[in-house]
Amino acid sequence: MRFLGGNYLLGNNTAKRIFKRIKGLPVVDPHNHANVKEIAENKNYPDPWQLFAGTDHYVWSVLRKCGVPERYITGDAKPEEKWIKMAEVFPLIAGNPVYEWVHLDLKRYFSIEEVLCRKTGEKIWDVLCKKLALPENRPQEILKRANVEVMCSTDDPVDILKPHRDVNRMMGKMILRPTWRPDRITKITSPDWRQYLSKLETRFNIKCSSINDLVDILKASHDYFSEYGCVASDHGVEVPYPAITEEKDADKVFKKALKGEKISSSDVYIFSDYLFGVMAELDAEKNWVFQLHIGAVRDTRKMLFEVLGQDSGGDVSNHYLDILTPLVAFLNRFENRLKTVLYCLDTSHQQTLATVSRAFGTNVRLGAAWWFLDTPYGMKKQLQFIGTIDLLSTFAGMVSDSRKILSYGSRFEMFRRVLSDVLGEMVEKWQMPEDVAEDIANRVAYKNPKEFFGL
Amino acid sequence: MRFLGGNYLLGNNTAKRIFKRIKGLPVVDPHNHANVKEIAENKNYPDPWQLFAGTDHYVWSVLRKCGVPERYITGDAKPEEKWIKMAEVFPLIAGNPVYEWVHLDLKRYFSIEEVLCRKTGEKIWDVLCKKLALPENRPQEILKRANVEVMCSTDDPVDILKPHRDVNRMMGKMILRPTWRPDRITKITSPDWRQYLSKLETRFNIKCSSINDLVDILKASHDYFSEYGCVASDHGVEVPYPAITEEKDADKVFKKALKGEKISSSDVYIFSDYLFGVMAELDAEKNWVFQLHIGAVRDTRKMLFEVLGQDSGGDVSNHYLDILTPLVAFLNRFENRLKTVLYCLDTSHQQTLATVSRAFGTNVRLGAAWWFLDTPYGMKKQLQFIGTIDLLSTFAGMVSDSRKILSYGSRFEMFRRVLSDVLGEMVEKWQMPEDVAEDIANRVAYKNPKEFFGL
Amino acid sequence: MRFLGGNYLLGNNTAKRIFKRIKGLPVVDPHNHANVKEIAENKNYPDPWQLFAGTDHYVWSVLRKCGVPERYITGDAKPEEKWIKMAEVFPLIAGNPVYEWVHLDLKRYFSIEEVLCRKTGEKIWDVLCKKLALPENRPQEILKRANVEVMCSTDDPVDILKPHRDVNRMMGKMILRPTWRPDRITKITSPDWRQYLSKLETRFNIKCSSINDLVDILKASHDYFSEYGCVASDHGVEVPYPAITEEKDADKVFKKALKGEKISSSDVYIFSDYLFGVMAELDAEKNWVFQLHIGAVRDTRKMLFEVLGQDSGGDVSNHYLDILTPLVAFLNRFENRLKTVLYCLDTSHQQTLATVSRAFGTNVRLGAAWWFLDTPYGMKKQLQFIGTIDLLSTFAGMVSDSRKILSYGSRFEMFRRVLSDVLGEMVEKWQMPEDVAEDIANRVAYKNPKEFFGL
Repeated sequence: MRFLGGNYLLGNNTAKRIFKRIKGLPVVDPHNHANVKEIAENKNYPDPWQLFAGTDHYVWSVLRKCGVPERYITGDAKPEEKWIKMAEVFPLIAGNPVYEWVHLDLKRYFSIEEVLCRKTGEKIWDVLCKKLALPENRPQEILKRANVEVMCSTDDPVDILKPHRDVNRMMGKMILRPTWRPDRITKITSPDWRQYLSKLETRFNIKCSSINDLVDILKASHDYFSEYGCVASDHGVEVPYPAITEEKDADKVFKKALKGEKISSSDVYIFSDYLFGVMAELDAEKNWVFQLHIGAVRDTRKMLFEVLGQDSGGDVSNHYLDILTPLVAFLNRFENRLKTVLYCLDTSHQQTLATVSRAFGTNVRLGAAWWFLDTPYGMKKQLQFIGTIDLLSTFAGMVSDSRKILSYGSRFEMFRRVLSDVLGEMVEKWQMPEDVAEDIANRVAYKNPKEFFGL
Repeated sequence: MRFLGGNYLLGNNTAKRIFKRIKGLPVVDPHNHANVKEIAENKNYPDPWQLFAGTDHYVWSVLRKCGVPERYITGDAKPEEKWIKMAEVFPLIAGNPVYEWVHLDLKRYFSIEEVLCRKTGEKIWDVLCKKLALPENRPQEILKRANVEVMCSTDDPVDILKPHRDVNRMMGKMILRPTWRPDRITKITSPDWRQYLSKLETRFNIKCSSINDLVDILKASHDYFSEYGCVASDHGVEVPYPAITEEKDADKVFKKALKGEKISSSDVYIFSDYLFGVMAELDAEKNWVFQLHIGAVRDTRKMLFEVLGQDSGGDVSNHYLDILTPLVAFLNRFENRLKTVLYCLDTSHQQTLATVSRAFGTNVRLGAAWWFLDTPYGMKKQLQFIGTIDLLSTFAGMVSDSRKILSYGSRFEMFRRVLSDVLGEMVEKWQMPEDVAEDIANRVAYKNPKEFFGL
Repeated sequence: MRFLGGNYLLGNNTAKRIFKRIKGLPVVDPHNHANVKEIAENKNYPDPWQLFAGTDHYVWSVLRKCGVPERYITGDAKPEEKWIKMAEVFPLIAGNPVYEWVHLDLKRYFSIEEVLCRKTGEKIWDVLCKKLALPENRPQEILKRANVEVMCSTDDPVDILKPHRDVNRMMGKMILRPTWRPDRITKITSPDWRQYLSKLETRFNIKCSSINDLVDILKASHDYFSEYGCVASDHGVEVPYPAITEEKDADKVFKKALKGEKISSSDVYIFSDYLFGVMAELDAEKNWVFQLHIGAVRDTRKMLFEVLGQDSGGDVSNHYLDILTPLVAFLNRFENRLKTVLYCLDTSHQQTLATVSRAFGTNVRLGAAWWFLDTPYGMKKQLQFIGTIDLLSTFAGMVSDSRKILSYGSRFEMFRRVLSDVLGEMVEKWQMPEDVAEDIANRVAYKNPKEFFGL
């Protein structure tokens, strides 16, 4: 038995053969949180903590769960001290995918075969420090080593996309595309919303006095993104919106917000619902993919939110959400006009989303198991389940959802192994011939995201 | 490895032994959508498309998902053109049970060992066309070859049941029983409801001026069905009704409907809830089984509904449904007086239904995993889950829910293999002795439905 | 193959090795329903029915499901008649954990290797009757044979805890600790609530004229429990309370209740919500563990409730519950001040609870899969799932939730086998090294409950 060795996650011989055929395929990653500036600057990483954990809230969560004080996670301890604390508790994390991702990265990118723990923490730190100084471990070189063909970062409508172009020029191919993620504009009660709106006004030189003006700004931004190779928008919602609000109702709310009047939660809903429809129309016009990340309840732990701000580990999922009612209304409005990807966060929602995907035909696709489900167990369950209700062959494919550069390698390797395992099992249960399984593996691992997103 | 060969779905040797002992048992199928007229006429099928796909919305859904144009599914393309289109995309369907059902049918009924795809589509069509002309491939002969002992079709209270009697006479045994499915009468806001009511009035020669008259009609129909060997009713509901409405309240709504006055959604609820109770009383009096198909949200995709009408592929399931509250009220009203079968559509509902079945004793049974779950993966999960919470030995057993004559063979074979696999695993994990497992397999595969339905 | 033999539930060789190392660890059981008086009296059991089934509603439920008349379950039939009826239907129970628990007990405690059925029922009865007369089969001796180090019974705030002390003195160690379970005081509309309150007033010599007085009583009881080694409270709730009610609002309700005025369901909520917060504060002050049993819908089957009273088999679980909203409010109020264990009853709630546990850090832990999920299948799914979202290593560990003395042995054996199986699978899929898996097994099986509860 060899930890993370060649047979990692592969339960039978057919699975091993299938994996052999897809492991070398280039990575196509339609959704991630790439730090574009980091890639454009292409500097060597200052230290192992920064590369492995400094930007990755997946790591933060599990360290907290082990009782590591915040000072050694997001606080002012020195990077080496943080690393050593992490090493000390790392054996407690086994079973969680963070354990496998970090060790995959140590093995595949730095040829470090030791298991991270109290005994090895310092030694591994030293080896990594030396290796990080080498040119091959700079961001662009790591992406090359991970065989990334194309990746779509997540960007705000106000963002300047020059760094994307810089990276593409430096790397000699269209490797980096932006994704239009307009969540912020809908957060009308957020204290910095007015300021954000001003930024947009300045950026696109449009003065906003009605919702129509705002839509013009969004259009301008959407067009701008398109010039930089954008092919998709992305939307984080607890539940989708039905997109049934009329302009005049949204306009009223918008004007209240502009005047600084009090905004009710139903106002927020009206405003968001209208813009949701507008954004989807923009995507439909350009044949972009409308990506929906459904089900995350954000920032539930007050202490973390107050001390560290958004996206710092207090997010959860909730089985008790009416996803179906608004989603059906939305999909009916855009019948056959809008490519849509549904990302599922909670196992309780999986069947609802799978049956919707099945019912709404080829333009509506299920996306990769997301966040809490982006694990060997979660992905396997999702693929088995999708296969029986929807179709594996039309699955939109894996995304890294990366919070750090190393995710492109380890997350795609894990997914491809799970995919091979699921198909291998079906072949060995005599449910499909092996060549049919191989073709599906190829589609899901490579062709589908390329074709559906137009990459 | 041989696709769909002898070990198909059987994970270990005990499973294989168990399957060997149950595979030859006659088929007892308490719920299906048999085309009784087709069976009574017993003509040769005009072409392979008609037999394999023409009436089967499971096939339609997956073809649509692969992007096949509607013309080649439910449209005016020629049967052979449709078949060829289906063959072309068929490899994309692998993993979905439709792939296995169709190939099982090709193998078991027509000795065709090729895998359906672009290359083989035409050849298989030709072979099938020849075979369909043989007497052995007429409906009644296929039922005999599938070893069907008894099957319960799904019929409307207004239906004339003579064709059932014809079939039974032709086949020399009570093979075909009707099931009373009165959903239509509750659809009080449907445009053709008034017309449907008139049909009922004429059919049973009772003029309806109060809800009591309608109940008299239902009784007359119920009695009529009984004469033809009916032993069960069947009800499709998003969630069950508590059956707590009083007659006078339902009567008011009924009279509004008769007068063509506006009916609110709460009126619909009151009317349906009252009739739900009435129907269950009728079943209780005759010791029929009250079958509940729970959780389907119908016709969500407008385009399909508008173009093709009901039941054409726009149905989904929804995890977010309060099933428990009304179901508990209903079961308490009929405590110990009513045999009830609960069919589960969504994995999220499985535990709620399993615990209800456990709590309400021997008259309340779980039924076969339904529709989206009627798959190797869905059935296995359901059986494992039922076993641990409720009892496998009291499970109501498999039903074909057929949309075509071929379902009787392939669906029961698939179920029996999964059942054997689940029990084989438990035996090989040393959780029960093999003879005990075999007895349970026999009960679930044959005895239980016979005894509980009284077939 | 040997039913319940050495490899029972262990799917591979690594699992077998891991189990070998943890099977002999002492039992630490932070939650059960021990009959303390029975243990203190330490008499021989009168007959096998009493020991195996007389107090165990798990057994009752499955016998009812098999159609055994109530007379032979909780009625006035003789114990031997009940046993024989049970034996007759026992093969029908295979697959349900009751089948495995009873046979484990027969084998491990009474060296009876026969399988219980019609043929063997009488013989096994006779053998058991003889064995029950031996000193080694008295309650305290069974606990010693089960290697119980410490166990926490479930007690009412009004209870006298002298029997706990007696047991500890007789057994020569602090084996039995009470748990503070104050559910009854919140049942303000229950017919015997006023009487229960009077008992509390007398017991603690405090006259209740305001909610403050009631809180004083609860404090006095809490202190008293502490003297007897209590380290935890326990709360059975359909959904948790947010604990956001102010004293004055609860006081109003309390005074209405004292005066015998009508209490609305919103009054009940206010009263319960306030006390929920008070109780948690008491626990926080003493660093006790606040245990939450979430999701059981009680006494749904009227007939059972009316004939047999509470907790007699009419309880179910419900997927459709908003657990998240109140739980998040509650956990934020007690941020970092309260050790909390979340027991999950329904697979649909598992992810919500797992993500909450992950988000709220080291003081909030997931507890053992409960009741309907306390089975090989349910526990395996829970452990696999927890591992991927939260951490296996911080799991609060197994509890017997016992309804009879034999549960301490069989339930812990079953759990430890499942735990070994889950970890063995991960090791053999090369997801973690074996020594890391072994350390986690040790923690979950023994160290975690000791450390987290302070036992």
